Amino acid sequence: MNLPLGYKYSAVYAGIRKSAKDDLSLIVSDKPAAAAAVYTSNVVQAAPLQLARKHMSASKGLVKALLINAGNANCATRTGAAVALATSKAIAKELGCPVEQVIPSSTGVIGVELDPAFIVNATPGLIAGLDADGFQKVADAIMTTDLVPKTAFATVKAGGKKEVRLAGCTKGSGMIHPNMATTLGYVMTDAIVPAAALRAMLKRAIGVSYNSISVDGDQSTNDIVVVMANGASGVKPDLARFEKSLTEVLQSLAKQIAKDGEGAKRLVTIDVKGAKSDADAKRLGRSIANSPLVKTAIAGADPNWGRIICAAGYSGVAFDPLKVDIYFQGQLVCKSGLAADFDEDALKAKLDVPEVDIRFVIKGAGKGTSRFWTCDFTEGYIRINGSYRT
Amino acid sequence: MNLPLGYKYSAVYAGIRKSAKDDLSLIVSDKPAAAAAVYTSNVVQAAPLQLARKHMSASKGLVKALLINAGNANCATRTGAAVALATSKAIAKELGCPVEQVIPSSTGVIGVELDPAFIVNATPGLIAGLDADGFQKVADAIMTTDLVPKTAFATVKAGGKKEVRLAGCTKGSGMIHPNMATTLGYVMTDAIVPAAALRAMLKRAIGVSYNSISVDGDQSTNDIVVVMANGASGVKPDLARFEKSLTEVLQSLAKQIAKDGEGAKRLVTIDVKGAKSDADAKRLGRSIANSPLVKTAIAGADPNWGRIICAAGYSGVAFDPLKVDIYFQGQLVCKSGLAADFDEDALKAKLDVPEVDIRFVIKGAGKGTSRFWTCDFTEGYIRINGSYRT
Repeated sequence: MNLPLGYKYSAVYAGIRKSAKDDLSLIVSDKPAAAAAVYTSNVVQAAPLQLARKHMSASKGLVKALLINAGNANCATRTGAAVALATSKAIAKELGCPVEQVIPSSTGVIGVELDPAFIVNATPGLIAGLDADGFQKVADAIMTTDLVPKTAFATVKAGGKKEVRLAGCTKGSGMIHPNMATTLGYVMTDAIVPAAALRAMLKRAIGVSYNSISVDGDQSTNDIVVVMANGASGVKPDLARFEKSLTEVLQSLAKQIAKDGEGAKRLVTIDVKGAKSDADAKRLGRSIANSPLVKTAIAGADPNWGRIICAAGYSGVAFDPLKVDIYFQGQLVCKSGLAADFDEDALKAKLDVPEVDIRFVIKGAGKGTSRFWTCDFTEGYIRINGSYRT
Repeated sequence: MNLPLGYKYSAVYAGIRKSAKDDLSLIVSDKPAAAAAVYTSNVVQAAPLQLARKHMSASKGLVKALLINAGNANCATRTGAAVALATSKAIAKELGCPVEQVIPSSTGVIGVELDPAFIVNATPGLIAGLDADGFQKVADAIMTTDLVPKTAFATVKAGGKKEVRLAGCTKGSGMIHPNMATTLGYVMTDAIVPAAALRAMLKRAIGVSYNSISVDGDQSTNDIVVVMANGASGVKPDLARFEKSLTEVLQSLAKQIAKDGEGAKRLVTIDVKGAKSDADAKRLGRSIANSPLVKTAIAGADPNWGRIICAAGYSGVAFDPLKVDIYFQGQLVCKSGLAADFDEDALKAKLDVPEVDIRFVIKGAGKGTSRFWTCDFTEGYIRINGSYRT
């Protein structure tokens, strides 16, 4: 990995989680960076998220530091706003920057007061630990039910020996409705990109990455994705090429979330083609992606296309079932709404792999397409979520 | 139990399922009965369902027999319509009634051809087995992933010694989105009730029973509920009293489905109060009822109200989180959007029981209410659904 210039990272165990695993992270740009963020659409919004939004606006998108804690969502708590502000202030004071250049985010249990002393007391150690090579420590420390840390990197050539770098890390798990677990995502680059351009790119890229593993509206109280561009490379990349790389980094992170479904064994890509509109294709894809019966069938390597057509049938989109073809791993299993001839044992073997593709094609209806990523659904999911809080 | 007069029941193993367990059922009224039915809203509709609708219309709601098979949904199959018709004809011929007085329904795997010979060959035995006391055999034979058979009974007094009887049986399991498993329901009564009145009553009663365990639109390809009134008692009950009992029978059956969630240990009742409208209350209740995180918390006897307010927050209904109170088993756990004081250990003990109540109250918004029934969500669910088809 080729980390972007001009960032330092730190993570410590502040005592917020019960288990002694790093739970407090800090990402600092040497100089304040142009930044953009997207936030949850849940009507319940965690205190740090509300403050992040306020800071991003007050600083006009200039960000010095990201402060992230796991173990407590600081949501629906009496003292939430005060805690988010006090801890941001403690960091700002140490870094000598205005408080509005600190963007806080939190993940963990909802409705339990977060004692700011954990964070304030840990701040000196957090600052002392800042290290240009500490990126992976942060990727580890932001995890909750995640089984693996999730990172993605890119380098964009900008003519001659000039290049810029991107590094992203994220947390979140592809549950049945993926965004019900808090999703946090952070992408740092040393490119020179104005905040307004960054905002526009992030908005477009989120649609085909994080929002393609989620149900519109099915978002947690704490979801946030932030992109920072500190210009430390001194290079202004071609914006189209930069956006392509940013999109790929965000897609890679999003797919890792989908794949790290709690207990999941397989990443599932669902392509819908031939719907009347892209909006219809999205509704169909989402309904298939969220069907627990489809997801349990995938876990069993079972090409059960009946469950797919059933899930499409209750999506709210009108279509003619007799015009539908369904493919698993490129193998036609349902032709014009009826069982196709295929070798079931051979296909089962092809499905017993880490990545599974499903294609749902409506013939002659239109040109609407969508792509969703999800995971299969195993007994491990229940074990993890049944005992998460207590 | 006090079965209605004038019905006979039979069930045999016709060889449709792999395991040698009764899979073919017949309910026959001595005289054709006034009948009403409701069907799935899925755009994919199984062949027997399409034929049932046609027969119900052609016979003007006069029904002699219900023919039910488990083990194959006869949906999305090349020969589906022909199979549904041929098997209905075989029964009609034996009973000497017009084919449109036979209502077929099916449950099981989708997309696999159903060989009509299984049913036609089993017909003589099925007819020979007809028995006024065979009700429970039918309740057993219609089950698929159900863990227990589901029946409900009522008697309505009609002055003096006069009374009428209702008996209902159903199959279906309260999955995450309950109606994704096929729901079949049959209620027989010996009351004299005109078909038009029966239709109006069924429509009203379904809203507060079967449709309160389901997600609007999240319905299987084969769902059907039929009510038959053969008048064999010779008694015309007060229609309001009869409707009350019919509603109670349907509610009892629906709650048994919610409770028999695949692998479920608890029946969960979710009451929403104080929403701006009943429609808003329904969206809130449905979002809470369908949240896998809420359902896994209930499995763990964990009063995790954060997951409840989060699920309400992405329901699409706007509300002020600081106006929300949440109760578990009557115990206030969230007051005005924040944690209330309560004895967590005591409440955990109160939650570790077969029936759990959740109340979600918005203060000062309106008078909208809803009630949903669902189940908790345990590891057993995955075990059952991961290996159902193969």
